[in-house]
Amino acid sequence: MNGNPVVSEAGILNPLQHALVEYPVNASPNDAVPIDAGCLQQLSHPQTYTSMKSLQTTTLMANAIRALAMDAVQKANSGHPGMPMGMAEIAVALWDGHYRHNPANPGWMNRDRFLLSNGHGSMLHYALLHLAGYDLSMDDLRNFRQMHSKTPGHPEVGITPGVETTTGPLGQGIANSVGMALAEWLLGQEFNRPGFDVVDHHTYAFLGDGCLMEGISHEAAALAGTLRLNKLIWLYDDNGISIDGKVEGWFTDDTPKRFAAYGWNVIPDVDGHSVEAVDAAIARAKSADRPTLICCKTIIGKGSPNLQGGDKVHGAALGEKEVAAVREHLIWDAIPFDIPAPIYEAWDQKARGAAAQAEWDELFAGYRAQFPELAAEFERRMRGDLPGKFDEALAAAIAATIDKKENIATRKASQNAIQALAPTLPEFLGGSADLTGSNLTNWKESVAVRSGVPGNHINYGVREFGMAAIMNGIALHGGYIPFGATFLTFSDYSRNALRMAALMKIRSLSVFTHDSIGLGEDGPTHQSIEHVSSLRLIPNLDNWRPCDTTESTVAWGAAVKRKDGPSTLIFSRQNLPFQERDAATVACIAKGGYVLRDVNEPRAVLIATGSEVELAIKAADTLAGQGVAVRVVSMPSTDVFDRQDAAYKADVLGRGIPRVAIEAGVTDFWYKYVGLEGAVVGIDSFGESAPAGVLFKHFGFTVENVVSKVKSVLQG
Amino acid sequence: MNGNPVVSEAGILNPLQHALVEYPVNASPNDAVPIDAGCLQQLSHPQTYTSMKSLQTTTLMANAIRALAMDAVQKANSGHPGMPMGMAEIAVALWDGHYRHNPANPGWMNRDRFLLSNGHGSMLHYALLHLAGYDLSMDDLRNFRQMHSKTPGHPEVGITPGVETTTGPLGQGIANSVGMALAEWLLGQEFNRPGFDVVDHHTYAFLGDGCLMEGISHEAAALAGTLRLNKLIWLYDDNGISIDGKVEGWFTDDTPKRFAAYGWNVIPDVDGHSVEAVDAAIARAKSADRPTLICCKTIIGKGSPNLQGGDKVHGAALGEKEVAAVREHLIWDAIPFDIPAPIYEAWDQKARGAAAQAEWDELFAGYRAQFPELAAEFERRMRGDLPGKFDEALAAAIAATIDKKENIATRKASQNAIQALAPTLPEFLGGSADLTGSNLTNWKESVAVRSGVPGNHINYGVREFGMAAIMNGIALHGGYIPFGATFLTFSDYSRNALRMAALMKIRSLSVFTHDSIGLGEDGPTHQSIEHVSSLRLIPNLDNWRPCDTTESTVAWGAAVKRKDGPSTLIFSRQNLPFQERDAATVACIAKGGYVLRDVNEPRAVLIATGSEVELAIKAADTLAGQGVAVRVVSMPSTDVFDRQDAAYKADVLGRGIPRVAIEAGVTDFWYKYVGLEGAVVGIDSFGESAPAGVLFKHFGFTVENVVSKVKSVLQG
Repeated sequence: MNGNPVVSEAGILNPLQHALVEYPVNASPNDAVPIDAGCLQQLSHPQTYTSMKSLQTTTLMANAIRALAMDAVQKANSGHPGMPMGMAEIAVALWDGHYRHNPANPGWMNRDRFLLSNGHGSMLHYALLHLAGYDLSMDDLRNFRQMHSKTPGHPEVGITPGVETTTGPLGQGIANSVGMALAEWLLGQEFNRPGFDVVDHHTYAFLGDGCLMEGISHEAAALAGTLRLNKLIWLYDDNGISIDGKVEGWFTDDTPKRFAAYGWNVIPDVDGHSVEAVDAAIARAKSADRPTLICCKTIIGKGSPNLQGGDKVHGAALGEKEVAAVREHLIWDAIPFDIPAPIYEAWDQKARGAAAQAEWDELFAGYRAQFPELAAEFERRMRGDLPGKFDEALAAAIAATIDKKENIATRKASQNAIQALAPTLPEFLGGSADLTGSNLTNWKESVAVRSGVPGNHINYGVREFGMAAIMNGIALHGGYIPFGATFLTFSDYSRNALRMAALMKIRSLSVFTHDSIGLGEDGPTHQSIEHVSSLRLIPNLDNWRPCDTTESTVAWGAAVKRKDGPSTLIFSRQNLPFQERDAATVACIAKGGYVLRDVNEPRAVLIATGSEVELAIKAADTLAGQGVAVRVVSMPSTDVFDRQDAAYKADVLGRGIPRVAIEAGVTDFWYKYVGLEGAVVGIDSFGESAPAGVLFKHFGFTVENVVSKVKSVLQG
Repeated sequence: MNGNPVVSEAGILNPLQHALVEYPVNASPNDAVPIDAGCLQQLSHPQTYTSMKSLQTTTLMANAIRALAMDAVQKANSGHPGMPMGMAEIAVALWDGHYRHNPANPGWMNRDRFLLSNGHGSMLHYALLHLAGYDLSMDDLRNFRQMHSKTPGHPEVGITPGVETTTGPLGQGIANSVGMALAEWLLGQEFNRPGFDVVDHHTYAFLGDGCLMEGISHEAAALAGTLRLNKLIWLYDDNGISIDGKVEGWFTDDTPKRFAAYGWNVIPDVDGHSVEAVDAAIARAKSADRPTLICCKTIIGKGSPNLQGGDKVHGAALGEKEVAAVREHLIWDAIPFDIPAPIYEAWDQKARGAAAQAEWDELFAGYRAQFPELAAEFERRMRGDLPGKFDEALAAAIAATIDKKENIATRKASQNAIQALAPTLPEFLGGSADLTGSNLTNWKESVAVRSGVPGNHINYGVREFGMAAIMNGIALHGGYIPFGATFLTFSDYSRNALRMAALMKIRSLSVFTHDSIGLGEDGPTHQSIEHVSSLRLIPNLDNWRPCDTTESTVAWGAAVKRKDGPSTLIFSRQNLPFQERDAATVACIAKGGYVLRDVNEPRAVLIATGSEVELAIKAADTLAGQGVAVRVVSMPSTDVFDRQDAAYKADVLGRGIPRVAIEAGVTDFWYKYVGLEGAVVGIDSFGESAPAGVLFKHFGFTVENVVSKVKSVLQG
């Protein structure tokens, strides 16, 4: 190798031709890089590689990823080259050998799902999408990490065609993948018919050491193992390096043994730089009766002669000098952002993708002919549209609460709403993190999902974070509206997954019961103080804290109807009284905040949520008796209320009269409504362990205190 | 057994005498309960039980726990009888056979630590503390779960003598125990001298299925295994039941194999109802060179003839009828809250505890004689007092920032502060969740902790939640001031542990860097929007977001000095300019908010934090040029500012002039300062992936926008 570029006839630098000229068929074009024995084995068995491509070709395909990744990161002077360079052969093995997808239609319903849980390696995915033929141009790659580009810092669903989920926060991508595999299995059980496996795809996830160190990997993998989700295949980039350096100082798990303990099929010691070895492992995984972890030994940043195998290649541009060294080392002569035509040809998956979908389209046409209603229902479900009868069922459920006037816990009201809506919502897929009987997320006809036994209610186990991220995966897959529950305080455990749902704009519903000091004796560890307000701070998350059966049912309706974002449904442990409303008032609940009780010329406005609405009404009564007319506003969702127009908001909150907010939680949030002249009845300390009634009194949730606060603002 | 009570001479019902009368020496007094072969084995080897007590005695000791637990739960009509009844024999084995503690002095520095990670079983701990002789009376047990009692719903450190940590949120207690074992090991390495193992104790934790399902169990156990914390012993209550029922539907881990994968010593298949078997397992565990998991097969609610072994016995009072059935079943004739004297005698650990401490006191006296300075330092460290020279070092560090006037990232300013304080603070125990080079928590002389190699900086791995809970354990143990770091957005992962630190009032410090859109290209998954405000909502958590080198150093000083609660230290990725201040102004930084730049007769007040202080200053300059005089308030800690007296706060915020807050995060929180007449320059959506400068402009963090907002409030 003399280092001079070889120029093709078309004038394009062509490392593929270059390599074919300079290397004998059975030698590696990048043999300057140490290759272990396992890797060398492939040289004698090139014929077993699924796609039948030569070693030269697959090597060049991998190096194309390396070049695009390092050049894009270099241009942005920001990003993570180490992972794409280290997983390049794994990517070739999966994408060229197994991944069934259609670049021309990223929304093909029966596509395999591919997730990059180690999302910092986003350039790997962008390079793959570009090379495979997705609508992601070389200019898009040039714009890596720039404002409003299709190639943001971490992969974001909805931004880039072919990206199935948003990743970056480690461990969540693999948990999403469990949700997708679960959705695929359940949907298949529901819709497939003999000869018509219309739902039949795999879910693949790439992951690194970071994902495996995160606790959520334990939660997600354990549940996937228990449910034997055999179409789930994880490819582990075992490079022994994390940001702090060699992981041996802080991460010494025997990962294959760990996953065996979860009941997974584990394929250990795969040479991650042998396309053939990875290909063979994936082939084995596809025939397993359990989820599979393929442990691929890799060298981070492979191809970078001076940085590979170390932590410095992980998260920063290589630098011009090292980029040049990589080019020389890989004998990669193409200029940045230029891929020689033969490599494009080798990578192009458009024809294969079109064929794969055409085959499925034909299957589905036959299915539609034989099962027209089922086919239509399947398509509706996958579109995420609600059934035609949903509005009717919701209206009936709301009407039933008004008829019954029940004084029950809102968690029970929630269960009643689920019970009322479930018959028209076969896409309901409920669950709880081991608190089913407390959260009341099950219903009469719900069936618990078990290994090999489909159903529509999931016992997630004591795995709050895993549950939330798995639900995100279910929502992303399509076909279901997932809801899962825990105590409100333990929303903390799942908080980043709630954030991710909001960022991804997906319909993932969280039921959080036992919503305040009202849970009583379990004490401050279980009593939410800051949680309701704190959830309200997450952008695009709609939070509902209803005060009675009617509001609870309206909240459920709003959450189900909201296609473009997640909602939380926050309920009481204790009974709450039914509030009387006329029809116009009932119609206003969906606006998030409304006048529940009005008076002529109110002198003040009381704003309350959930269990404190009752107190506001009582205080208003007492004040009325003392000649002070006050309006009561119920505000089940500040998020939704904030989206109403200014006139409606001003009508509800009143003009020029003081306001007092009441909520059994931190006060800070409420000043945005009451201002500096108003007052807030709340709790700015932790709770206590005692019966609920004692606690409400202790913390000042009494008529006397509210009355006193109102009088103080009137005098102020 | 005829069911008639046997009355002792003193008129007290005495089941111990009763049992001794009615049962031959080698029969079990509760043999109506199914006992498996392993349990029966003990009958032929009673002499191997460490404390040499007879089977009758230990059975009655266990049944005393059962009786107290079920009666207290029954009286409160709230609580969890299943765990105490199921773990009673395990508790006898540990507490009577191994646990070295002194009921008369719960603060004895070298006591073994005992943690109840399955904290819902709090009555087990309360019963044990009462029986062993702690200052926890029978009246305290009668007041279980009542307001301001010493026996809250879940165990709370600081409330009940002998309780080492607050538990309830599952999985965190075991993570705390890793921190305690780590602190014990490191402290021993630092202070022990040949012949003087003044730090030499075990850390024991009880845990259940719930703890093991939680992701944090993975993070904590993996790190404990890597560090080979061999004095850490976990006793797993393997009863096969969680709240939703038999765990086999959602929890099928091979737990022994899983822990073997972490490098733990695992003792599987121990009969948890055989005191002798558990005792022998603990004895083996104490001689292991690695942490040990003892898997104890138990029956939840054992002793309850109609409910044991099922989920109904987990979290509710048994009911009067079943309580009576338990009494009959266990041949337990004592009335509720009455323990026969012989059982008290069998349980009494006061003498043994006093002897254990006396032995250590003698050792420590010899240590003090030989190493007086070391002994004094050890005592200071364990008291949590700062060294005499700390204030001086802090003042010098602050002065150095003023001299240097560096325009650097506050994360770098933080590292400089650590560097300046570390020489006088040997109790500093830093760390990062695999972002050391980004968080900058290490310093020149810091030494990385490795298996068998002590140090003062911990590579926690990608384990944010585990890190926070382990830090809580370190802080609870005493001897260290732990600080650990990650990116601010991933504070979400650790959120409930931050809450627990605040609830426990412990000095556990979190360094959160990359604090806003200012981190740039990593995009919305990594950009904090809601986090600063959301952390402020957690009661008793002090949060600091400094604007420059001086504020960063003051913040570090405040966090270190704050003995009664945790702090977060929130820093920028990007450079921030140094702000000039006079000495009086510097002195005000510690008040959390202060006038950074004042003017005569300000017409408005700009309030800003962190990276936005620079913008506020620039906007004030521009406004001044336009004849509008505005004051600039820097507010590095709203939490600390809120604790100042009303006069100071009004002096800073101004009276009767409008306010505009500027922070690169959600706006809601700031209305508590600016009111409805003020304005907030913030971000109420997720971030974007682009260079920082582009983002700040895109989101309106420009002089023009701030000027415009000020003018709008002046016109309003």
